[in-house]
Amino acid sequence: MRDGFLLVLSGPSGVGKGTVCEALLDKRKDIKYSISATTRKKRPQEKNGENYYFLSLDEFKDKIDDGEFIEYAKVHGNYYGTPKSYVVDKIAEGDIVILEIDVQGALQVKENYPGAVYIFLLPPDMKELRSRIEKRATEDEETINLRMNNAKNELSFIDKYDYAVINDEIEKTVKKIECIIEAEKLKVTNIQGVKL
Amino acid sequence: MRDGFLLVLSGPSGVGKGTVCEALLDKRKDIKYSISATTRKKRPQEKNGENYYFLSLDEFKDKIDDGEFIEYAKVHGNYYGTPKSYVVDKIAEGDIVILEIDVQGALQVKENYPGAVYIFLLPPDMKELRSRIEKRATEDEETINLRMNNAKNELSFIDKYDYAVINDEIEKTVKKIECIIEAEKLKVTNIQGVKL
Repeated sequence: MRDGFLLVLSGPSGVGKGTVCEALLDKRKDIKYSISATTRKKRPQEKNGENYYFLSLDEFKDKIDDGEFIEYAKVHGNYYGTPKSYVVDKIAEGDIVILEIDVQGALQVKENYPGAVYIFLLPPDMKELRSRIEKRATEDEETINLRMNNAKNELSFIDKYDYAVINDEIEKTVKKIECIIEAEKLKVTNIQGVKL
Repeated sequence: MRDGFLLVLSGPSGVGKGTVCEALLDKRKDIKYSISATTRKKRPQEKNGENYYFLSLDEFKDKIDDGEFIEYAKVHGNYYGTPKSYVVDKIAEGDIVILEIDVQGALQVKENYPGAVYIFLLPPDMKELRSRIEKRATEDEETINLRMNNAKNELSFIDKYDYAVINDEIEKTVKKIECIIEAEKLKVTNIQGVKL
């Protein structure tokens, strides 16, 4: 059996990474979600070990020291990180592991995993992005402005990614990402031992 | 508007390049067929200017001298070539030009057009390939054996291609190639002037 691969789904805050990721996971059994660890506060609907592993600052720092993250970063004052073992195990089993992650994290992953597949999710336009961030309604005006400025800066890193997908309609976005997965599987460089 | 691209559909004789190519052209308006020129004899059902441009040896050699081919080759004793102007014009108009071509020709195209998308069509197995070549029933036993040996040799060039698609069922094959096209369109390197 051939190895799976790491699919990094990234883009600015508010672009819809979470929704797209959930829709992909609902649709396909061969995609596994890489659950991140974070020190940020749990939102009301979130569950520990499902949306995130919610860790204390000390717990998080211990894991950094032990090299247990494939990436970690401090964003908006909180730590976020990706535990290494799950990703490595699932890829070895032939699964596609999806990593839903901000741009800063994705760039860090790329330093260590250049062979992963990097998708940048784009908003249809910046007004739409602001509207989405505002609808989330868990942040104050200052935080919203900070996220908008971050988003503008993050867009400049798009050329570090393999693919860019405009997230205008969720069904279309999911189909596009499924095509990217299919095409990646068909790459000659990813095929081992074609039998004839 | 972004440029289109050249899609090179290649693989051993008898693998089903022609059938796959026709199915793709039937299904999608954004794919244009690059009609080759050849000095080989017209088969009963073929039409000049539709399947091929059928040229005399002298006509063909004049076009070689005038640099009017993006590739040409002598295969099984006949010349085959791809007229340049049509391909260049259609790509500039944003179309995908599909080039259905043997392996020798594809490798020659790659020298001049490394940015094209190269797909190697594989038979499910070599017995199936022989059966397909025999069913075509336009060649004698010696020619069939020659084509089988060529096919085995051609398979060794698969690593020069971007994608490998096993042609087991035509509908599946077409869907896979459509995914490759979609993914190629989403590549960051192929996106010009994303507007935000």
